[in-house]
Amino acid sequence: MREVAIIGVGVTKFGELWDASFRDLGIEAGLKAMNDANLTGSEVDGMYIGNMSSGRFIDQHHIGALIADYSGMASRNVPATRIEAAGASGGMAFRQGVMAVASGMNDVVVVGGAEKMTDVTDEATNAVMDSAADQQWEATMGATFASLNAMIARRCMYEGIATREQIASVAVNGHAHGALNPDAQFRKAITLDTVLKAGMVADPLGLFDCAPISDGAAAVVLCPLDAAKRYTDKPVKVLASSQTSDTLALFQRKEITSFAATAAAARQAYSLAGIGPEDIAVAEVHDHFTIEGILALQDLGLFKKGEAGKAVMEGQAAIGGKVAVNTSGGLKARGHPIGATGVAQIVEIARQLRGDADKRQVPNARYGLAQNVGGTGSTVVVSIMEAV
Amino acid sequence: MREVAIIGVGVTKFGELWDASFRDLGIEAGLKAMNDANLTGSEVDGMYIGNMSSGRFIDQHHIGALIADYSGMASRNVPATRIEAAGASGGMAFRQGVMAVASGMNDVVVVGGAEKMTDVTDEATNAVMDSAADQQWEATMGATFASLNAMIARRCMYEGIATREQIASVAVNGHAHGALNPDAQFRKAITLDTVLKAGMVADPLGLFDCAPISDGAAAVVLCPLDAAKRYTDKPVKVLASSQTSDTLALFQRKEITSFAATAAAARQAYSLAGIGPEDIAVAEVHDHFTIEGILALQDLGLFKKGEAGKAVMEGQAAIGGKVAVNTSGGLKARGHPIGATGVAQIVEIARQLRGDADKRQVPNARYGLAQNVGGTGSTVVVSIMEAV
Repeated sequence: MREVAIIGVGVTKFGELWDASFRDLGIEAGLKAMNDANLTGSEVDGMYIGNMSSGRFIDQHHIGALIADYSGMASRNVPATRIEAAGASGGMAFRQGVMAVASGMNDVVVVGGAEKMTDVTDEATNAVMDSAADQQWEATMGATFASLNAMIARRCMYEGIATREQIASVAVNGHAHGALNPDAQFRKAITLDTVLKAGMVADPLGLFDCAPISDGAAAVVLCPLDAAKRYTDKPVKVLASSQTSDTLALFQRKEITSFAATAAAARQAYSLAGIGPEDIAVAEVHDHFTIEGILALQDLGLFKKGEAGKAVMEGQAAIGGKVAVNTSGGLKARGHPIGATGVAQIVEIARQLRGDADKRQVPNARYGLAQNVGGTGSTVVVSIMEAV
Repeated sequence: MREVAIIGVGVTKFGELWDASFRDLGIEAGLKAMNDANLTGSEVDGMYIGNMSSGRFIDQHHIGALIADYSGMASRNVPATRIEAAGASGGMAFRQGVMAVASGMNDVVVVGGAEKMTDVTDEATNAVMDSAADQQWEATMGATFASLNAMIARRCMYEGIATREQIASVAVNGHAHGALNPDAQFRKAITLDTVLKAGMVADPLGLFDCAPISDGAAAVVLCPLDAAKRYTDKPVKVLASSQTSDTLALFQRKEITSFAATAAAARQAYSLAGIGPEDIAVAEVHDHFTIEGILALQDLGLFKKGEAGKAVMEGQAAIGGKVAVNTSGGLKARGHPIGATGVAQIVEIARQLRGDADKRQVPNARYGLAQNVGGTGSTVVVSIMEAV
């Protein structure tokens, strides 16, 4: 298989974007990425789009064709493939794009992720979110993602894996970084007290332990590594993109203080990349809830189990710490337009490895990792990139 | 890239299956295909699933993880990827599975397609169908797939491309074949009179010009061609799987008496396969409405434009004719569980090329083709297979 490079990245502002439609957002991110790659549309020969629920959020299925159409690609019959895996939709679309270029099936691929969540009622949004869990055995019984993650948090606290304060510190870290990201939904640093005293959502998780509902889109352009210099002086090499599954329902796991699918995807990805967790300088992890941020750090091997929470609290996940985690702000502060998240993670890692991350730049970052999760660890994609 | 073979196929009965759930259907089809390939689950290292709208039909997104879970694959963290492109979801999942094996990313891949449509109201079903068209410029304005196809049919009749009787004969051909397929939703031969005198849906198309609403699932197992003999004496070689896009809305096309995306996908597929339309012995085409059956035959080059309707009426698309079209019964008689359709087409072609099609067997078929469409020709996948 061919080696693959990221040659362009683009992202919209994330937030409650009531004056932008789904198609506006998708096109904005795609054009930014193509401009960043100094690319004209005529060179693109494949598109992958991560999206969870355009069918319920905007009453529109078949958004591959929609994006191909509105980007002008349909005039050349460019194939456009939509991928859905709840929160992992974007990371999975990225992996399929990497596969398309690596295999030789395509030469220049645009991978986009987009979600327009705020045009429906809160009730409708909640119903969509719940449908990423096991509808039959979880959602129907009243379980929500907040309550499932609250159970994980409780168990972690009980087993001494992390304290309430340590879990809360994931949000503090995210907000500190989000304040430096002009595209983030929340750009205000917060204190531990803000998280601990926020209104309760599902005990022990409060409002600031939960990522927001967001609109937004992100895109990257891929091509073979040996062609990348035609487009950019700063290509980013994709070393690995590994995808795994676990049970859909949380209660069927052997343990809930670890996501086995993250650990398995990480093992595969490190092996393919030929590096270990100690080499990662910058990581975007799927902190849909703060506790997921703790689990990610331990399951990816970035910190030992039982030490991740302490490390975050001590600033080891901040810019300048052992490994800079969620420099974009993460799902909590950058925002979480579901299908866009996995692609936005790749955008942030690429910017860091190119040295383009402005005020939130991690100095001399060589290796970066993105971890994207669907459901409560039911689907995980771990991708590793290298500055070249 | 490696050559790819189909080594197992499976399909459920199609129809109104009120006593089978989505997960029941998906697992039944997958297990049948795996048994057909003499395969144990432990050899599978990737899964692709075509599905249009589990999110609205069964309130469940994230069905990759669901199927990985209920098939037992999640216990080994096997990646499962859901693909959506309205009616082309199944064909597109097949293409991604082929790419995964061809690239060397995976060695044994199960591709499934499934849809459970009959557990919601007709109103909800119609809303889902409409959302495969351009919601903003078609569905919101009152256009439905029946009315869009009626406009295509009217224009074809006006331009002398096909008469009303010729268009209707597509349903007669499908039902004649469906009567021979034990898994088909409708197993009763009909006359031209039945089609012409049926209740009007959208002038000139009546009830028998429209494919039904269906539940069902289909699956195939893929592996590298050079490993296929380990599993089966009758592998089927995948020569090409080509995917194209066109505008989402019909009104933006230069012409509506032809699907440019079908013609483009066919050109690519024939070129990759190194054969021409004259070599195709058996074809499954996307006759969601009878007029789409006519368009497919001409756009695939199986008959000349303006001659397809006459040919169908004269029996040239029947078993024993020039090219046997929709020997499964097609969407009209076999049924159209949206995400399953594209995979069920591959199942039928594989059976024909293996000589396993029982009463509907086409003698000595060497090359077979499947054409799967999303929307009104907005996404098309054309795949070509060869008996080996």
